[in-house]
Amino acid sequence: MKKEIVIIGGGFAGINLTKRLANAKGIHVTLVDKNNYNFFPPLLYQVATGFPEVSNICYPFRKLFHYKKNISFRLGELLKIVPEQNKVVLSTGELSYDYLVLATGTESNYFGMGNVRQSALPLKTVDDAIDMRNYLLLKTEEATIATDPVEQRKLSTIVIAGGGPTGVELAGMLAEMKKNILEKDYPELSEEKVKIYLVDGAPALLAPMSKVAQQYTYDTLVKMGVSVELNRQVKDYVNDTVIFADGTSIPTKFLIWAAGVTSKVFQGIPKESYGKGKRLLVDQHNKMYGMQNIYAIGDTCLQTTDENFSEGHPQLAQVAIQQGINLARNFKAMINGKPLTVFNYHDKGSMAIIGRSKAVADIPSPKMQIKGFIAWVMWLFVHLFSLINFRNRIKTMYNWSIAYFTKDQSLRMIIRPKAVR
Amino acid sequence: MKKEIVIIGGGFAGINLTKRLANAKGIHVTLVDKNNYNFFPPLLYQVATGFPEVSNICYPFRKLFHYKKNISFRLGELLKIVPEQNKVVLSTGELSYDYLVLATGTESNYFGMGNVRQSALPLKTVDDAIDMRNYLLLKTEEATIATDPVEQRKLSTIVIAGGGPTGVELAGMLAEMKKNILEKDYPELSEEKVKIYLVDGAPALLAPMSKVAQQYTYDTLVKMGVSVELNRQVKDYVNDTVIFADGTSIPTKFLIWAAGVTSKVFQGIPKESYGKGKRLLVDQHNKMYGMQNIYAIGDTCLQTTDENFSEGHPQLAQVAIQQGINLARNFKAMINGKPLTVFNYHDKGSMAIIGRSKAVADIPSPKMQIKGFIAWVMWLFVHLFSLINFRNRIKTMYNWSIAYFTKDQSLRMIIRPKAVR
Repeated sequence: MKKEIVIIGGGFAGINLTKRLANAKGIHVTLVDKNNYNFFPPLLYQVATGFPEVSNICYPFRKLFHYKKNISFRLGELLKIVPEQNKVVLSTGELSYDYLVLATGTESNYFGMGNVRQSALPLKTVDDAIDMRNYLLLKTEEATIATDPVEQRKLSTIVIAGGGPTGVELAGMLAEMKKNILEKDYPELSEEKVKIYLVDGAPALLAPMSKVAQQYTYDTLVKMGVSVELNRQVKDYVNDTVIFADGTSIPTKFLIWAAGVTSKVFQGIPKESYGKGKRLLVDQHNKMYGMQNIYAIGDTCLQTTDENFSEGHPQLAQVAIQQGINLARNFKAMINGKPLTVFNYHDKGSMAIIGRSKAVADIPSPKMQIKGFIAWVMWLFVHLFSLINFRNRIKTMYNWSIAYFTKDQSLRMIIRPKAVR
Repeated sequence: MKKEIVIIGGGFAGINLTKRLANAKGIHVTLVDKNNYNFFPPLLYQVATGFPEVSNICYPFRKLFHYKKNISFRLGELLKIVPEQNKVVLSTGELSYDYLVLATGTESNYFGMGNVRQSALPLKTVDDAIDMRNYLLLKTEEATIATDPVEQRKLSTIVIAGGGPTGVELAGMLAEMKKNILEKDYPELSEEKVKIYLVDGAPALLAPMSKVAQQYTYDTLVKMGVSVELNRQVKDYVNDTVIFADGTSIPTKFLIWAAGVTSKVFQGIPKESYGKGKRLLVDQHNKMYGMQNIYAIGDTCLQTTDENFSEGHPQLAQVAIQQGINLARNFKAMINGKPLTVFNYHDKGSMAIIGRSKAVADIPSPKMQIKGFIAWVMWLFVHLFSLINFRNRIKTMYNWSIAYFTKDQSLRMIIRPKAVR
């Protein structure tokens, strides 16, 4: 009798776990996701600003699992866990499990600000990216015909909240689009009138990176025409106006929200299982404390057993990937009665792209900071090869080449399908 | 003082007119469209069945008109024409014109059947295509977990109403997907259970084509496993069941509607201006009868002055393109006080694709009918070179090559952005 492993979430953690359990003896896997495709979050900002090829960064789960007989896919959202019955309740039915793995990632954190949640533009999913693209394009069309000066100003000001990689990447991309595309596409508008703000409550951009990277990023964005405002915290968003904690405000129709994430809370999981940021507390094998057969991996878990990370790991793709791989190894070991492997994060470094020929990278060993053109080439290669398959790599490389030579990477179409019935 | 020409609709007719007025002396053009992009309708059926690259068949108007100083773009829907004031009222404001051109195409005709309009899947726009793709994928996921046999049957039956090119192309594509992809992607389902119906009220498929083409298309589709039912007219669609005029019915969650088109009716245009199918009656220069400065071109007009087409032209891309080109020539002639050119349609033939290596083509001179592999190669070339620019051609060729060699052309992602605010 095969052991049934149910994995909730097919992001970096879940997909790496699932892939490595393909054809494993004695194991059947059901991967559950609310989308029918895996996607590559680091390139969402490009989809949001005009690369229309969603397919470059997505791949359907079912196609990934062709000929993998011990893997099933189930479309659905997790509603409830019933640990005492070893089952999960999904929006599309129920599943029983021998082992359950939560790899559900994070969602945008609005820190209790209802107005921001309602009207700001998040960037956590592919749907978010398309929504943002449609909104940017549609409002820019409105800007071309706006006659009221207040309205015009709101339509030509963009505020990005959050100075992490997503905020930096979006600010850089929008600054380049303003310079290279705006007046060609919208002769009605003028470059000088468009303002891009990148604001963060913290005193530095790219908080976890080196001082060198932070300073280079700041200087580069300012040189590109972005108003970078640190120590400035969003408090509310009312009447198309961003209100800051210091009492100042910026009128804008565009508030992009990249200022924080939180894990999800699940019905059926006791309160004491959640740690900081609602992350699920797990032991050195990613098993949840107090649970016999429920595991959590990736951004959604908090593991404090790793020697150098007693506060938990940073919520990065690399941690998620490595936890997925380690848990796959451990499931196979369990089935075969072999000893388990403790999780240790191997830090490969971190990087962020700012714009054309501009990026930063911190390498842990040998410890060094790289910036500018070389970091940019590194960023392109690392991200190209991290895409899920050959076909997506080819398509992305083609698009990036076009972008590099034409300085106009994008096809700006407003596609507006109806909600699915 | 430049003459202001307002063109409503950027399809085959409108875009060909607009492009040929670029840099014309004494003329300023404003192209109005409810989308911000031009698209290529003959390939909508591929987008609907899984080619995710919407960008292969679309191109933004604003990017098309870079450096064309006498062309402006305006996003908006036509609400009303006020001929006596020479102005149009759009959803996004008003425009004054010296000449107005209506190139608004057609929309699906439901022949007064409210239930069909509400629940069937049309295929006239890019949004329709994405809606159809999302719906097909989502319902197929439901089929994998359906337990009720009635529900299962409804989820594994597809009815395509309309035996024109769109219906034939969709039927062929779906039949190939059923054969090549279904069991690989959905091991829970079985090929035998899935039924595809192509129904038409007329006694033949591809009504305006030759008998040879019609018979070959019929035979080929039947061989591919499609149930082709002629002389069978849809009367209603209730309770997930298609009801036919002869009293029979087919239970299905999928009714695809490709059974007819109608032109649009405009506020401000008198009743007597509309002919058969609500098409706008125009003279030999595409000027509307009784109007001084309003023109209509493409599918939306009915021109009976052309020698061989006293009943009006067929509603085909070629007619629209040629009318757009001729009207551009005439506008330039008018400005320069030169004589106008009467429109004469030059029939280049018609074709339809059924599937891999299977197509039909009727050539008018020398008169011949081509079918099978050669017609298929012709179809591919004609459609590839009809795409709007080099980049779209390259991308489409790449995708078609992948499709040909892998027999799996598509990336089946359900992308569900919200409605734009």
